[in-house]
Amino acid sequence: MEKIAIVGSGLMGSAMAWPLTDNGYEVNLVGTHLDDDIIHSCKQNRFHPRLKRQLPNNVTPFYLSELDDALKDVAFIVSGVNSNGVRWIGETLAPKVDQNTKIIAITKGLEATEKGELIILPDVMRAQFPAQIQDNISIAAVGGPCIAGELAGRRQSCVYFGSRELETVNMFRAYFHTDYYHVWTTNDIRSLELAVALKNAYALGVGVAAGMLQVAGGADPAGAYMHNLAAAFFARGCKEIHNMLAAQKANPEFAYSLPGAGDLYVTSAGGRSVTLGRLMGTGLRYDQASSQLAGETLESALVIQQIGKALPALYEMGKLHKEDFPMMNFLVDLVVNNQNPNLDLDIFFNDVVV
Amino acid sequence: MEKIAIVGSGLMGSAMAWPLTDNGYEVNLVGTHLDDDIIHSCKQNRFHPRLKRQLPNNVTPFYLSELDDALKDVAFIVSGVNSNGVRWIGETLAPKVDQNTKIIAITKGLEATEKGELIILPDVMRAQFPAQIQDNISIAAVGGPCIAGELAGRRQSCVYFGSRELETVNMFRAYFHTDYYHVWTTNDIRSLELAVALKNAYALGVGVAAGMLQVAGGADPAGAYMHNLAAAFFARGCKEIHNMLAAQKANPEFAYSLPGAGDLYVTSAGGRSVTLGRLMGTGLRYDQASSQLAGETLESALVIQQIGKALPALYEMGKLHKEDFPMMNFLVDLVVNNQNPNLDLDIFFNDVVV
Repeated sequence: MEKIAIVGSGLMGSAMAWPLTDNGYEVNLVGTHLDDDIIHSCKQNRFHPRLKRQLPNNVTPFYLSELDDALKDVAFIVSGVNSNGVRWIGETLAPKVDQNTKIIAITKGLEATEKGELIILPDVMRAQFPAQIQDNISIAAVGGPCIAGELAGRRQSCVYFGSRELETVNMFRAYFHTDYYHVWTTNDIRSLELAVALKNAYALGVGVAAGMLQVAGGADPAGAYMHNLAAAFFARGCKEIHNMLAAQKANPEFAYSLPGAGDLYVTSAGGRSVTLGRLMGTGLRYDQASSQLAGETLESALVIQQIGKALPALYEMGKLHKEDFPMMNFLVDLVVNNQNPNLDLDIFFNDVVV
Repeated sequence: MEKIAIVGSGLMGSAMAWPLTDNGYEVNLVGTHLDDDIIHSCKQNRFHPRLKRQLPNNVTPFYLSELDDALKDVAFIVSGVNSNGVRWIGETLAPKVDQNTKIIAITKGLEATEKGELIILPDVMRAQFPAQIQDNISIAAVGGPCIAGELAGRRQSCVYFGSRELETVNMFRAYFHTDYYHVWTTNDIRSLELAVALKNAYALGVGVAAGMLQVAGGADPAGAYMHNLAAAFFARGCKEIHNMLAAQKANPEFAYSLPGAGDLYVTSAGGRSVTLGRLMGTGLRYDQASSQLAGETLESALVIQQIGKALPALYEMGKLHKEDFPMMNFLVDLVVNNQNPNLDLDIFFNDVVV
């Protein structure tokens, strides 16, 4: 029976064990240094405290200190860390990988530079590996609307796997695809990763409507909420993901399929991105809002911070046009500039084709 | 003070009175033959029973029998009927319009023929007018995510107005645009209308996930819902609106902006389309599900029925490719063929670009 290692035993990393074990594989689930409590529970009573589920039979939990054992003879590695852990997992695995190593990453996010570069996280991870094997290691990534708890509950889920090599990604698909986990493949990993990173940013934006509703005292006596505003934010998010992909010479199709619109839909249904947006929608500045969520990884804020780093150069060079990103500019003002900017909806859809 | 007539005093038609009166215009609100109760209440105590709100001061309610008075000296007419009423309003207005008449319609839907034609409703209405003035009458339409009760509650809302003549639609914008009702204009009314009609169909599809969840007994003990499935349906809806627009040589951009993704988002948040989908998701056939909603106008089912009429010819002629519309095929099986088809998610995203 082939073995697979999952490194990072948070929600999504761990959930990937379900389709793998259902397909007959053994899974070594390795906690990071932040996951000792999870692994302790898994070892004690096979209960995953964050997923609130018993582990499948063929999953073996490992502490990080047991990483070498866990990696022995595995067919591939699932990187289950969040975006803060991408460099760490690269550095940690670097001494243990060879040119035949295959990795699939669930992390969503991106890194940016002040020169205007947007770097997808699989490339950040790859850069941690020894130079002579960097180009040989196969790295794939997962994108699309998939709440981990639903995957572990074997609820129907549809996702894309991406990798620069189609052969790699089709290989991964064969391991993971089940009758509840539906996987499509693309060799356009950059477009996929940009789309799924950006949707976290825009989900925060959708959450702002909920905060504004709260300030307005909730539904009015006739029952009016602020769904129209949330939908305008949602639509603008899809449009700006499209604008960004097009400007980056990536495939804009990902904006209106599983990775963009689909993933934004599920992310807007709840979670930390929406909560953070809601808090700022009530009028809190980012420093105030984020302090209420201290200890949580705020992927949405992280991606806005990264984009905010690159935007001035991208605008300056004419690689992006500022008027194509009114909502991202608003989000950057919120999160990076720690402002509570005026929301000028009148400029939001000025790029409509007449 | 300029006067405007709104014909059709349902939710959306009536709600259009709010931005108009806030902009200083007088509004004559005319009920159809189905709206006598509404108009009676409006005349008695100025309370709109469906919107659950007092009418603004400058709105005057009229019974249909008072239509001639209501149309006297108006700057333009708002058609506030639903898709079942489009021919009726055309026929009703036909003897009363001249070549200078300007109409803006809030109706969402489309008509189709077995020859594969998809006809937008403003064109259906136009065809009811006398031949010699048909081409001169200016008709515009509204599209985008806008729950009527929120518009009447002066909640922030963003929409498109479309008309073949940009001058007409910019004229309408000037009447309606307020600091809460944000209007963008396009001369591509066909793309706009196709997108907003299709989103009703796909909102029904998103509702199917809720029905499947119900059958599964709701959230499982670990708290897993079926958001992933709903998001996959949502994403597929956006993709198929895009595919349809592209195949119809319309502007695919409307699929991932206010009319497609945005309007699908707000429609998926609740209402009859979602309810009908949910009922069928529990395993009811269309005849069973729709009988539970007897008396309601089911715009989503109407549009699926129309598309279902055109699809065979469109596929036959090669104007559409069947594999580009797995979800619409599923919806047609549900609603037109009265089946409870197997949901084959594995074919849903086969048109991904690799």
